[in-house]
Amino acid sequence: MQEEKTYSPGLEGIIAARTAISFLDTEQEEIVIRGYNLLDLIQRAGYVEVVGLLLDQQIPDKQRQQEIEAEMVGSPVPDAIYAILRLLPSEMHAMDQLRTAVSALGGFDKEAGSTDPSSEKERAPRIIGQIAQMVANLTHVAQGREPQPFSPAYSFAENFLRVIVRREVSPPEVRAFEQSLIAYSEHELPNSTFAARVVASTLGDLYGALTAAVASLKGPLHGGANEAVMYMLLEAQNVEGMDKLIRQKLSRKERIMGFGHRVYMRRMDPRAQLLKEVLHQLIQAQGKGQEYLAMCQRGEDIMRSEKGLYPNLDYYAAPVYYLLGIPIELYTPIFFAARSAGLLAHIIEQHSENRLYRPRVLYTGPRGLQL
Amino acid sequence: MQEEKTYSPGLEGIIAARTAISFLDTEQEEIVIRGYNLLDLIQRAGYVEVVGLLLDQQIPDKQRQQEIEAEMVGSPVPDAIYAILRLLPSEMHAMDQLRTAVSALGGFDKEAGSTDPSSEKERAPRIIGQIAQMVANLTHVAQGREPQPFSPAYSFAENFLRVIVRREVSPPEVRAFEQSLIAYSEHELPNSTFAARVVASTLGDLYGALTAAVASLKGPLHGGANEAVMYMLLEAQNVEGMDKLIRQKLSRKERIMGFGHRVYMRRMDPRAQLLKEVLHQLIQAQGKGQEYLAMCQRGEDIMRSEKGLYPNLDYYAAPVYYLLGIPIELYTPIFFAARSAGLLAHIIEQHSENRLYRPRVLYTGPRGLQL
Repeated sequence: MQEEKTYSPGLEGIIAARTAISFLDTEQEEIVIRGYNLLDLIQRAGYVEVVGLLLDQQIPDKQRQQEIEAEMVGSPVPDAIYAILRLLPSEMHAMDQLRTAVSALGGFDKEAGSTDPSSEKERAPRIIGQIAQMVANLTHVAQGREPQPFSPAYSFAENFLRVIVRREVSPPEVRAFEQSLIAYSEHELPNSTFAARVVASTLGDLYGALTAAVASLKGPLHGGANEAVMYMLLEAQNVEGMDKLIRQKLSRKERIMGFGHRVYMRRMDPRAQLLKEVLHQLIQAQGKGQEYLAMCQRGEDIMRSEKGLYPNLDYYAAPVYYLLGIPIELYTPIFFAARSAGLLAHIIEQHSENRLYRPRVLYTGPRGLQL
Repeated sequence: MQEEKTYSPGLEGIIAARTAISFLDTEQEEIVIRGYNLLDLIQRAGYVEVVGLLLDQQIPDKQRQQEIEAEMVGSPVPDAIYAILRLLPSEMHAMDQLRTAVSALGGFDKEAGSTDPSSEKERAPRIIGQIAQMVANLTHVAQGREPQPFSPAYSFAENFLRVIVRREVSPPEVRAFEQSLIAYSEHELPNSTFAARVVASTLGDLYGALTAAVASLKGPLHGGANEAVMYMLLEAQNVEGMDKLIRQKLSRKERIMGFGHRVYMRRMDPRAQLLKEVLHQLIQAQGKGQEYLAMCQRGEDIMRSEKGLYPNLDYYAAPVYYLLGIPIELYTPIFFAARSAGLLAHIIEQHSENRLYRPRVLYTGPRGLQL
């Protein structure tokens, strides 16, 4: 019986959800988000528009956009959440702090326990805004500074970046940051989205599903890659250093972060090409940082010729965030904040047509032992 | 392409892990735990022995049992965790409080980030003990009482029960409680264990995987069932009330908690039969509570004849906990505390032979839309 069933480690190639949210078409190299090409969205839409698209299943009109953005920038985080963050050791990993904060946030939502899709959809913009505010303030609170709420005077993307870097930010900086948020907003069924759907399928609430997704994204094989890329660039220091470091890692058979992707395999992640463009534009606008593009290019060249591997989104998002002055420990939390829109769409979809996830195992242990 | 792949909603019947930990043999109606029949373990082993079996892959000798139990009862919970719990609204669902506490606990483990199986195995008994202490004190802290640590003067099971009920407990009470802990300790790949393995597969740490499991177990389709059963018994009040209530729910096509199981389907959960026995013994020892057994029996009879459904573990665990004087909101947290042993075994196994979970989807949305 058992032996006849096929087992695919990591569920590779197994269909685990029916979804109308997104699809990675690896043959046509297209990331489809509710019918649109993600690259078009990165180039021509705003993050709030994409949030609306994910939640409403259509591009929101101006009024609906304003309504969503007002919730996203106008819903402060309860003081108790920051008090909880202050009780955590300051050296605790930022993603572990965020996991705790997202879990705690559920306590301050009177409808937390509701898994009714219409209630979840209504609350989603507020929750996305609160998550972004918690992320933007994580490092500040850990270092003893007062948290800053978002302000209705600025757009969501500008608020998010301003609160992180605590300075005036230029329109090209805001746009580069916003484009990274769109690039991270949704991506079919990566581990974190799958974890969120698995948890949501018990009819547990959305805070539980989001908490599971933070836990997943923390993993070095998943969201942690953008931070690892930046530490590699800083260690390399310049183009020659990058050349030497990558060849050294290859000869030691060490994993090089920011390359390859389970689904794309040996083609380039379409988002990486676009973020490379965003990096180039940001360097032009800021008049600095050319060396990071050159280092990344060298790494990309070596990996293609030596291993046939192409960069993924994290590879080019890392230097973009670095040039914006964002603390490295916030790269993965920002990825989560951006992805919270896609995650909420998946949780709502799961609750709309639910079936409990409960697979089986291939048992390889002993039988018939006696006490 | 897409259409050719088969899709099984909820991954029903799909093998999602290779494991030597446990197996539900539905043909022989046996729950195998590392080679032993779970019913033998419930009848003849102690909970600490089962923890050792799950972690060490063999029944621990007396010395190893003492070593494990010393860690389980001798590792206090950091004060900051209780301070965090006090900052949460007292009306927050106990499982959501626990989810936050388990997440926060990672901040106080200097090896939290290690996914090395030997480090995880060494830390596991301490973590199981800390989780039990957090669970035992949840309601006390929410109601403004001081938390009590476990004491090396008592066994793990006695500590756990004493701190919950804050009174002297008799040996038959401790044994009934301990048997429920063994019954809940491990059960192949239910949603919560699957969620923990999915999250662990990113090489995220064990606190993240455990946090995801708490979120999963909270769901009414999973761990929440034991609490729902007790509320049903209290609403019914007596055998006639139970008869009326169940028939009423059946005629309204309402879901009746505590019956049926995805995997067992139309056979009785072997654990339920044994917990029914435990309930009977506890009633004998306490000299009260006969009406709960009678009510449960009536419900069981109706459901078998009307729907062909048999009770699951939660159905008989609920009245056992009620007669022990355990607050209803702690039933699911206790389930989690007991299951933490099995969860840690699965997380360690996942990290020992890892493959990132990353399945695909069946996309049903539109294509080719233009902005």
